[in-house]
Amino acid sequence: MKREEIEKRIAQRDKKWLNKFFSHSHPADIATLLDRADDDDKAWLFSLLSSERAADVLAEVQEETARRILKELDAKRLSGIVTELESDEATDIVGELSPAKRERVLRRIKPEQRAELRQLLKYGEETAGGIMATEYVAVNDQVTADEAIEQIRAQADEVEDIYNVYVLDKNGKLVGHLPLKKLFLSSGKTKVSKIMDPEVVKITTDMDQEEVANIFSKYDLVAVPVVDKRGKLVGRITVDDVLDVMEEEFTEDMYKMAGSDGEELLTSSPFKVARIRLPWLFICLFGEMISAGVIGYFSGTLRQVIALAAFIPVIMAMGGNIGIQSITITVRGIATGRIDLSQRGKLLLREIGIGALMGTACGLLVGFLAVLRYAEFTLALIVGTAMFSAITVSATFGVFIPLAFKYLRIDPAVSAGPFITTVNDIVGLGIYFLLATLMLRWLT
Amino acid sequence: MKREEIEKRIAQRDKKWLNKFFSHSHPADIATLLDRADDDDKAWLFSLLSSERAADVLAEVQEETARRILKELDAKRLSGIVTELESDEATDIVGELSPAKRERVLRRIKPEQRAELRQLLKYGEETAGGIMATEYVAVNDQVTADEAIEQIRAQADEVEDIYNVYVLDKNGKLVGHLPLKKLFLSSGKTKVSKIMDPEVVKITTDMDQEEVANIFSKYDLVAVPVVDKRGKLVGRITVDDVLDVMEEEFTEDMYKMAGSDGEELLTSSPFKVARIRLPWLFICLFGEMISAGVIGYFSGTLRQVIALAAFIPVIMAMGGNIGIQSITITVRGIATGRIDLSQRGKLLLREIGIGALMGTACGLLVGFLAVLRYAEFTLALIVGTAMFSAITVSATFGVFIPLAFKYLRIDPAVSAGPFITTVNDIVGLGIYFLLATLMLRWLT
Repeated sequence: MKREEIEKRIAQRDKKWLNKFFSHSHPADIATLLDRADDDDKAWLFSLLSSERAADVLAEVQEETARRILKELDAKRLSGIVTELESDEATDIVGELSPAKRERVLRRIKPEQRAELRQLLKYGEETAGGIMATEYVAVNDQVTADEAIEQIRAQADEVEDIYNVYVLDKNGKLVGHLPLKKLFLSSGKTKVSKIMDPEVVKITTDMDQEEVANIFSKYDLVAVPVVDKRGKLVGRITVDDVLDVMEEEFTEDMYKMAGSDGEELLTSSPFKVARIRLPWLFICLFGEMISAGVIGYFSGTLRQVIALAAFIPVIMAMGGNIGIQSITITVRGIATGRIDLSQRGKLLLREIGIGALMGTACGLLVGFLAVLRYAEFTLALIVGTAMFSAITVSATFGVFIPLAFKYLRIDPAVSAGPFITTVNDIVGLGIYFLLATLMLRWLT
Repeated sequence: MKREEIEKRIAQRDKKWLNKFFSHSHPADIATLLDRADDDDKAWLFSLLSSERAADVLAEVQEETARRILKELDAKRLSGIVTELESDEATDIVGELSPAKRERVLRRIKPEQRAELRQLLKYGEETAGGIMATEYVAVNDQVTADEAIEQIRAQADEVEDIYNVYVLDKNGKLVGHLPLKKLFLSSGKTKVSKIMDPEVVKITTDMDQEEVANIFSKYDLVAVPVVDKRGKLVGRITVDDVLDVMEEEFTEDMYKMAGSDGEELLTSSPFKVARIRLPWLFICLFGEMISAGVIGYFSGTLRQVIALAAFIPVIMAMGGNIGIQSITITVRGIATGRIDLSQRGKLLLREIGIGALMGTACGLLVGFLAVLRYAEFTLALIVGTAMFSAITVSATFGVFIPLAFKYLRIDPAVSAGPFITTVNDIVGLGIYFLLATLMLRWLT
């Protein structure tokens, strides 16, 4: 289907054509269409969908689109949609509403689901409790395989996908899981406790979602049971939610490293984006005024050899680049669990080594270029040595600062971008002009 | 288990204790242990594992660890391990070997598996064909539900997890899928073609793995069938592989943005790392020599107002930061499919708007600071205007350059980091000194 055709039909408000088009589209494709539609069209397009279909689509649209659509819906339509959603998605949607609207919606849905949602809303949004669903299939450990199949059949209707059947003891405590394949292959009279696998990777409701994602990836899981502090099964997280979490966490990390915030995704207003980014830029601006102070302090030296100014950009840029390389590798290593604090000494030494190597190469090259350009050996010596030092120091800071942030329990991603480059600029320029002042005194 | 205890036992070469410890550890945990062990211990520790266990662990270790271990294994042990692996993992392992060793290993395994591996080795490593496995469960569309269950039972032993049962016509063409739940709930005499779902998301062998990951995430899939050009089912990709692909692609993007390469993960030698990063740094260094040329060209102006030098860092740093923000958001948007080329005009306008807003704020602030520091209105006007222009231009470039790279089919991630900052430095400093020269002429 050509995009132009769809856009034309939207502009014409051609309900009949669009209804037909939606009826044979995948909810995820309708969601993409809504994400890309003009803001004014989103709510109207969404109004064409039945509650069930609307629920599927709402679960797939971007957060910004969801917010815009939710604003336009009344409590009646909302409660119809919420009823159709899986509990984890219903919680996300209800959590987005204002407290008053939330109450109006909750009052309209069944008491059972209402209680469930209230419980789920209590968990932190970025914890295992916040992303889990309460739909899962579980059987008692004392029943037979045939009885288990009966119990599974009875529950199958509520649960979208049965990846694992969990086994509970009489107190609701998770004691194992029952792979469908094993159930398929074993005789009907066997007790579940005999065929279940008692080794089951489980997580608690308060685990951070990034850690949850790392566990899925490490153990190659498709679904994981979530238990409360007493080991009672309370929910299940499926891998499709984890894919979303991974994308979200990646994007957040990258935005933070660049001195912005994942929040930026939720708005299309340039004013709001500017407001999110400006605090970091101001910090950086004040930091660079220290750099200005450094240059101002050495203005006597600079006046003596005006050519020194020409090499300010290259010293700053190379230090900045190497700082960003080191910090990127360190931040990413911490996020994936590849790096932990116990390796700090080894890591620092390695990155100092890399820094010294690259510093030597770049120092020699820039010194050579300085001789070519200005035919001045003293200048070349100053620039080359400063380059070597700035690069080595930047590489060291690039490892040290995120590890220090991690140790202080601050998100290491925040340390990158504006912060590290500003620090490196101040230090790099300080070294450069100090060397220049000293060498000029010694050499001339 | 405390890490010190394990390290002590490794140092003592305590086979008995370690064997016992490994026997009740998850393969993924043994893999982490190997990843963190000293290089000299990795092969020895691995030698303690049975072929089956070794295969599970080898599938989980980091690529660097796998390379180190593979180097030490002979063809006999290797073929034993390869036989135990799923076809996709076996392909990865065999693909790592030298051609001669690969032949020796292939000669030792069953002809059937050998032919399969040779076929899989032909696909590009980062395509759907390169990450798919050939283990899947499929039934004919003309059999009954009961017969299908029989066929599934017969295949269940070879396939680790049955997520989906695929339905093939008599030519092996994929015509649908059969959810286990539906099979569970329907009567035994129904024909498969009546209960199967003919709508099945499928991909072709040549699709790029990043696109595969986006499809999993968009459609919330757990497994996806892979077909050849004629629509014949040839393999299956499962979500656990996709989690690895996402991590890999994301890490690669970040490394590229910082001017390095995912290859860096595969080595611990500072020399190799320096060799990977230096090309970008040299390009940046030569680029910044153009910045040096710009400053050199305007040295007359600089000599006249030496205070101009003090603001070089802040102009460069702010332009650099905003450039990185814009480029990060654009590169990430392209990678996740959130942004496509059709939105280029809207995106550019939006980012120019954000740039102009932030440029105004930062320009005013830096102008104010310049007045405070130097009590010079002309200088403040120059610095403020230059800051405004540098920021607006950087924001524009930060969107324009990755989109242009995308259009030219170059990975946009490469455009970030060193490249964009160098371009922004040259332009930003050019604007600054040009404004300074012009304004000094007009104002004094």
